[in-house]
Amino acid sequence: MTEEQDKSSVTLGVFLLDCLKKEGIREIFGIPGDYNFTLLDALEQYEGIDFINGRNELNAGYAADGYARIKGMAALITTFGVGELSACNAIAGSYSESVPVIHIVGSPKSMLQQEHKLLHHTLHDGNYDAFRQVYEPITAYTAVVTPQNAAIEIPAAIRIAKERKKPVYLVVAIDQVTQPIVPRSFQPEDKQTNASSLEAATAHARRLLDNAKSAVILADHPVQRYGLGPQVQKLSEAMQIPTASMMLGKSSLDESHANYIGMYGGAFGSQEVSAVVEEADCVLAVGVVWSDSNTANFTAKLESSRMIRIQPDHVQIGEAAYRNIKAEDMLSALQAVGFQPKAGIPQVSFPYDTVTGGADEPLTSASYYPRFQRMLKQDDILVVDTGTLTYGLSQVRLPQGVDYIAQAGWESIGYATPAAFGASVAGGQRRVLLFTGEGALQLTVQEISSLLAGGYHPIIFVLNNSGYTIEKYLNVKTRNQKYNEIPQWSYTKLVEAFGGDAYTVQVRTNGELDDAIEEAARRNAESMSIIELITDPMDAPAYLHKMREYLKMQENQQS
Amino acid sequence: MTEEQDKSSVTLGVFLLDCLKKEGIREIFGIPGDYNFTLLDALEQYEGIDFINGRNELNAGYAADGYARIKGMAALITTFGVGELSACNAIAGSYSESVPVIHIVGSPKSMLQQEHKLLHHTLHDGNYDAFRQVYEPITAYTAVVTPQNAAIEIPAAIRIAKERKKPVYLVVAIDQVTQPIVPRSFQPEDKQTNASSLEAATAHARRLLDNAKSAVILADHPVQRYGLGPQVQKLSEAMQIPTASMMLGKSSLDESHANYIGMYGGAFGSQEVSAVVEEADCVLAVGVVWSDSNTANFTAKLESSRMIRIQPDHVQIGEAAYRNIKAEDMLSALQAVGFQPKAGIPQVSFPYDTVTGGADEPLTSASYYPRFQRMLKQDDILVVDTGTLTYGLSQVRLPQGVDYIAQAGWESIGYATPAAFGASVAGGQRRVLLFTGEGALQLTVQEISSLLAGGYHPIIFVLNNSGYTIEKYLNVKTRNQKYNEIPQWSYTKLVEAFGGDAYTVQVRTNGELDDAIEEAARRNAESMSIIELITDPMDAPAYLHKMREYLKMQENQQS
Repeated sequence: MTEEQDKSSVTLGVFLLDCLKKEGIREIFGIPGDYNFTLLDALEQYEGIDFINGRNELNAGYAADGYARIKGMAALITTFGVGELSACNAIAGSYSESVPVIHIVGSPKSMLQQEHKLLHHTLHDGNYDAFRQVYEPITAYTAVVTPQNAAIEIPAAIRIAKERKKPVYLVVAIDQVTQPIVPRSFQPEDKQTNASSLEAATAHARRLLDNAKSAVILADHPVQRYGLGPQVQKLSEAMQIPTASMMLGKSSLDESHANYIGMYGGAFGSQEVSAVVEEADCVLAVGVVWSDSNTANFTAKLESSRMIRIQPDHVQIGEAAYRNIKAEDMLSALQAVGFQPKAGIPQVSFPYDTVTGGADEPLTSASYYPRFQRMLKQDDILVVDTGTLTYGLSQVRLPQGVDYIAQAGWESIGYATPAAFGASVAGGQRRVLLFTGEGALQLTVQEISSLLAGGYHPIIFVLNNSGYTIEKYLNVKTRNQKYNEIPQWSYTKLVEAFGGDAYTVQVRTNGELDDAIEEAARRNAESMSIIELITDPMDAPAYLHKMREYLKMQENQQS
Repeated sequence: MTEEQDKSSVTLGVFLLDCLKKEGIREIFGIPGDYNFTLLDALEQYEGIDFINGRNELNAGYAADGYARIKGMAALITTFGVGELSACNAIAGSYSESVPVIHIVGSPKSMLQQEHKLLHHTLHDGNYDAFRQVYEPITAYTAVVTPQNAAIEIPAAIRIAKERKKPVYLVVAIDQVTQPIVPRSFQPEDKQTNASSLEAATAHARRLLDNAKSAVILADHPVQRYGLGPQVQKLSEAMQIPTASMMLGKSSLDESHANYIGMYGGAFGSQEVSAVVEEADCVLAVGVVWSDSNTANFTAKLESSRMIRIQPDHVQIGEAAYRNIKAEDMLSALQAVGFQPKAGIPQVSFPYDTVTGGADEPLTSASYYPRFQRMLKQDDILVVDTGTLTYGLSQVRLPQGVDYIAQAGWESIGYATPAAFGASVAGGQRRVLLFTGEGALQLTVQEISSLLAGGYHPIIFVLNNSGYTIEKYLNVKTRNQKYNEIPQWSYTKLVEAFGGDAYTVQVRTNGELDDAIEEAARRNAESMSIIELITDPMDAPAYLHKMREYLKMQENQQS
């Protein structure tokens, strides 16, 4: 033991957990394996953070992502090779959607690695760097942590995750976790807004606004991740201009606010919202990701000449880029500009405000989305899987304080069930509603078991439309593809198979859905509910119908 | 269209499927996604290869691996990002265990990639090479396939997979699949044995054998993958020397043969076998991987001075390496050497030859492994998950023609259930027996649904020992770890939940197991069977007890 090590009695494992606790992490997700025993043993003995055992690593990764979307950050512990590689999709999803997850991997004994011994859970080629290399393209930072570098590498990695809202990857050998670390002080440079850059950007923004009769705010997921919601809200109040959310940024803003007009979805979304946004003289786009999902397959009509694009660390106005400006500083500066629109907040209708469809009529998108909207309560957590539901629910108006969790950009089917588990762990007493297609559910169904075993009571809506309906909508070339068919399951029996108890019901009509929703809400304090909605295989919300028409048109133009 | 393209009417998709069909592939595993529609549409219209829809991509990858172990090669189709990244663990496992799987990924339209558009299923950074980079460290070859290079890249990748028995990765843009390819001829260099290298190696081997009184053959998985079993068998007959298998190479040889003495497992396996191997003057090690699993944590006593190590493309004798020798040629040359041992094949006992334990006595490793051995039939396919079962079943003696599928080196828990699905698809009329722990099953349980939906009738043994028993054995530092506990499921209900029908039974005594095995065998033609064995949480085969003692000893020496 060196003299330096002597000074510290903190082991690498405890130091790591201390750092995570400082970030508000109270639970860590993962799966045990023989290379992460010392990490899990350290965690089991540690006060203030619990280990949450998932049913497999992909699911644990999704759960960590869901947790981070509520708590701001999450951690995941897996084992070398077999464990960590099962979580690649979840971590890449966190990267794509800007969710900070600290992925910690336990690796074989350092001496065996140095000797390039051929061990189980390796490629049998003596290369101990291969899996870190796998993670390099899908994380913001990777590091091999040792007692010598832990005091720097661990806080540095966490800081990157926090600053960039991206996952990072740390791997530590099983024998190093119990070693005392070499103490070193870590003093990262604090990134500040460049004052002259901010001044120039503000002046440019003022010129644009001075010539504008109308303006609108678009908010995307960085608003949520960086906690900018209240500031954006204040700006909209100060300027008396409407706000709209983007597909990826749903629940970034308070949707119950009078200034909120709905989701902007180019040619596919509400055309009332599109008119407001596309006719505005100035668009204040906060954190907007210019992706296909956000712009309705690039049908959004948003010329850069009338846009002020505020990103977490820079601003773009027209074609001019202003570097090193923190979004919060730009939002404050804009508030001082003092814009006065020529008209008030436009009156728009919300697609699902009115409940339609008779009690005995079969369920359709037009009838069940308004019912979903009606049942929502303040502070609910909605977790939504990819599929037709993503498009329908994106236009449901949320009460105050609701968190809406979906992978609207990465769009990995099966994400929502484990994410709902993570959100349940994070959410405390908050009600969790999971919306999933039956196709998506099949990919990650075992996390229903984790929800049951953990005593959580989500209300789960399973939209059973007999296969991958979303895929049938997106493939405009062929019809009735066999590959989009899936087996039919019984969700009532599933709960029993997982050794649990829940209120389960199958509904086919609007009246049955109304009753089921009432019953599920009533039972929420004591049990999980699973409401299976049986719909026509080609039932889908208006948004998706428009998307399909557009894809068909594109296809016809090309062929 | 260029002049060259004009000459060919074969599209990229059809060319790819033609190449795969040539290799004996009759089924391709995968999951649909909107970037692989054209691949799946091409496949749905193609004669001679069927698409086999898995429940998720990891499972489809495992299924492909299981299929390849029976048919020699497999293919997997996934979608960009979200799909392919879920299969990383399965593909890395195929790499580790030398199983050739062709992983084909459908990517976004080539024009959108070239324009670096931000699309769903991407990292939203415009980088379309990130996921290929993820696959580089875990495959033998990766390529972006286009109509221009398809005629070279596709056969080249397949050839690498075949020659090296490793997975390869091909990604193709959705709009390129339907394009005609540019015809080019692919004439790979055929690797031949270097005659003088072979002569030198043979001379060296002769010197070693001339001074040897006894010799033994060890066979590992390359024997199976490269189809060397019959030749190794012939060599053992010609030399009249015993054969033993390694942990990773089980079923490489005919275990019913009189020369077969069992599995060699250093200090943990049968000590009779260890005595034969460790006292032999010459050890002919065919394809042996010198890993911890194969050498019982490096307790195997095998000095290089008395070893002839025959690898697929080279030979090592003592410290001398002889390059560019095909294993088949070295095996032929050795047969001509004319070794005469001083004694006959040693008589050894097999650990599970005698059925013990009274009908009313509770199930223990000592009682159920002999019963497993007794029930096996010629040409059965055994699929075994990682856990205590790996160690026990490795010492069960197999009838002729049995294929034994397990990840004895990569050891990813949850592998076996999907692999049994793949093996069932590959196996035709052969009986499939799946052995899994309840812990392992939970990771990939949805593939039971695929087995049911496909009308397959495996006999499934679920060893329910209340948690991750293998992990409890391998962690010698702490006890009663909470993290090794898992929820208790009902396997009878599970079958009903998956909309299927099966013979399911829970057994606690030897007599109950006997009855269940009889019933399952009787019903094999008409239905799946699930036999759940309830055992003590710390029940484990002798091999694992010895391993734990060894780990404890190591731990005590270090602390």
